Amino acid sequence: MTKNEGVHRTVTMRDVAREAGVSVSTVSHVVNNTGARIGQEARERVRRAIDKLGYRPNALAKNLVTGSSRFLGLVADAIASTPFAGQIIHGAQEEAWRHGYVLLVANTDGNEAAEASAISMMLEHKVRGILYSTWYHREVKLPAALAGSDTVLVNCYSPQGEVPAVVPDEVNGGHDATRMLLSEGHRRVAFLNTRALSPAREGRLRGYRRALEDFGLVFDPAKVVDVQPDQEGGYAAVGEILALGATAVFCHNDRVAMGLYDGLRDRGLRVPDDLSVVGFDNQEVIAAHLQPPLSTVALPHDELGRHGVRVLLGIEEAEQTGRLEVNCPPVPRRSIVAATRR
Amino acid sequence: MTKNEGVHRTVTMRDVAREAGVSVSTVSHVVNNTGARIGQEARERVRRAIDKLGYRPNALAKNLVTGSSRFLGLVADAIASTPFAGQIIHGAQEEAWRHGYVLLVANTDGNEAAEASAISMMLEHKVRGILYSTWYHREVKLPAALAGSDTVLVNCYSPQGEVPAVVPDEVNGGHDATRMLLSEGHRRVAFLNTRALSPAREGRLRGYRRALEDFGLVFDPAKVVDVQPDQEGGYAAVGEILALGATAVFCHNDRVAMGLYDGLRDRGLRVPDDLSVVGFDNQEVIAAHLQPPLSTVALPHDELGRHGVRVLLGIEEAEQTGRLEVNCPPVPRRSIVAATRR
Repeated sequence: MTKNEGVHRTVTMRDVAREAGVSVSTVSHVVNNTGARIGQEARERVRRAIDKLGYRPNALAKNLVTGSSRFLGLVADAIASTPFAGQIIHGAQEEAWRHGYVLLVANTDGNEAAEASAISMMLEHKVRGILYSTWYHREVKLPAALAGSDTVLVNCYSPQGEVPAVVPDEVNGGHDATRMLLSEGHRRVAFLNTRALSPAREGRLRGYRRALEDFGLVFDPAKVVDVQPDQEGGYAAVGEILALGATAVFCHNDRVAMGLYDGLRDRGLRVPDDLSVVGFDNQEVIAAHLQPPLSTVALPHDELGRHGVRVLLGIEEAEQTGRLEVNCPPVPRRSIVAATRR
Repeated sequence: MTKNEGVHRTVTMRDVAREAGVSVSTVSHVVNNTGARIGQEARERVRRAIDKLGYRPNALAKNLVTGSSRFLGLVADAIASTPFAGQIIHGAQEEAWRHGYVLLVANTDGNEAAEASAISMMLEHKVRGILYSTWYHREVKLPAALAGSDTVLVNCYSPQGEVPAVVPDEVNGGHDATRMLLSEGHRRVAFLNTRALSPAREGRLRGYRRALEDFGLVFDPAKVVDVQPDQEGGYAAVGEILALGATAVFCHNDRVAMGLYDGLRDRGLRVPDDLSVVGFDNQEVIAAHLQPPLSTVALPHDELGRHGVRVLLGIEEAEQTGRLEVNCPPVPRRSIVAATRR
């Protein structure tokens, strides 16, 4: 086992000055680009010395001098169990870098003590502000520890609206998902919604109703079946969906759609010939890989992270309501067929 | 939109001293727990002032004084597209915190420029060392930028072995997966391996062969079918698997198993009654949620992150080969049935 011990031999500005045969303040002017008049030759000697010795300006010292750091903090509650948190982190990091910030990421597993300690660590590192994110869209109680920091909520919101929040536009997403079925001529469209109370449940239902209205259809509560929001829930609901005589189903998420596919197959039925299906989430490793590939609506996790950073840095403003709603774009694939073909 | 401006009004040690009516050095002794003799009453006054003003010791300043930081860096190549990177980050962060370190996470999307810039940022923040990780187990060429840092590779390795690597034990994993089928009496066990050259392909095949040997069976190359390592690959291979007369199949990963399930259903066949199946990865959102739930072997991403930190901090050593191999534990569910029941 080999280890490079380089990190312990820190090259200082003094070393560079000695190597270049100039004063430390000359090195400092060159490194920090202060605009001081330094002769071309001295400037080049400093640059050569920097290259030769592998000198790196100390970001920590710079942060101390300027009084605030180039850090943004991101607190996530479930980085390990879904790809969703990873996508939020990805978007936030890209946007943070674009503005010269480094993202400090902390995972809390939803544990309050871990959360308080993560936030405290971030404040000790003088973060410019903190993104507080959840892996599914929900209401949160703002942790007390965040009181000392600029905060933006990502994929969650505080009902008091005391800090801005960036959330998915569930209503529009539900509307677009339903419209994908209606515009293919389907008129008996069931909705397998989640039974868990959540903004996703309420918002997608409102979107479903709005789309029916657009097409002049009457909302029938019997066509909304509440299920456990995963494969098992979709699998168990097949009988009920068939009994409704639906020709198309909007599933609360892609996992429910996957269970529905399995249940239909077990009865010798096929998507989309026997039933058109649309999901929600555009979940990696599932949606594009079902047989047939699932038409769905994407949860914009990456965009949530990006907008979160922009609101935190004041580049973008949340609405008066304190919530910025991000569009959920439709992703058509091959699980919907025109109703006339049946 | 409300914003707390607190982060910009930094409370200093001087403010605390003024509030408490003591000297700055008294505050410093209390805050840094130096062991200096400070009267009980003064100590309490300082604590009350700290609480009242919301003073936080400056971690950046402490890092400067001690010369190295309490940061570890983690470079990941695909944080957004699979839950695997999230699990490595989770494990690494938990272990880093346990030893008083904060993890700086950077995502590179496999882009070399982003990678060099992430590593450079980490070195500027004087990280104690860097974990360089990939989302699937593979050989890597060590980025030049890492030369200035203690480095441990996680889920990847450099063939020269110049830095330690923490990787999954593919051979043992393949062995255990195959044994799960053999120990239920199956003797015609096919292997849907990936066609992509990789340590997973080689290692799992060696494990499969070793398990056959354990049971006194002759290895038959015709029973190994190379496929695209996803649902589409498994789905397309159903005909070939059935033609082999296999009673059980070891799938290179859970996604291949998912495709195989779908293909079998489309022919009116069922897992496990018509075919016993074992996967690999224990992939979130898939393995536990197939119908029936999939028996598999877990890729220990969380553990890879933990061991990576331990090797980096010198708490644990990689083997002479420079590689620490982490066990892939079997996860039995309901996709295997005894061969005698058929």
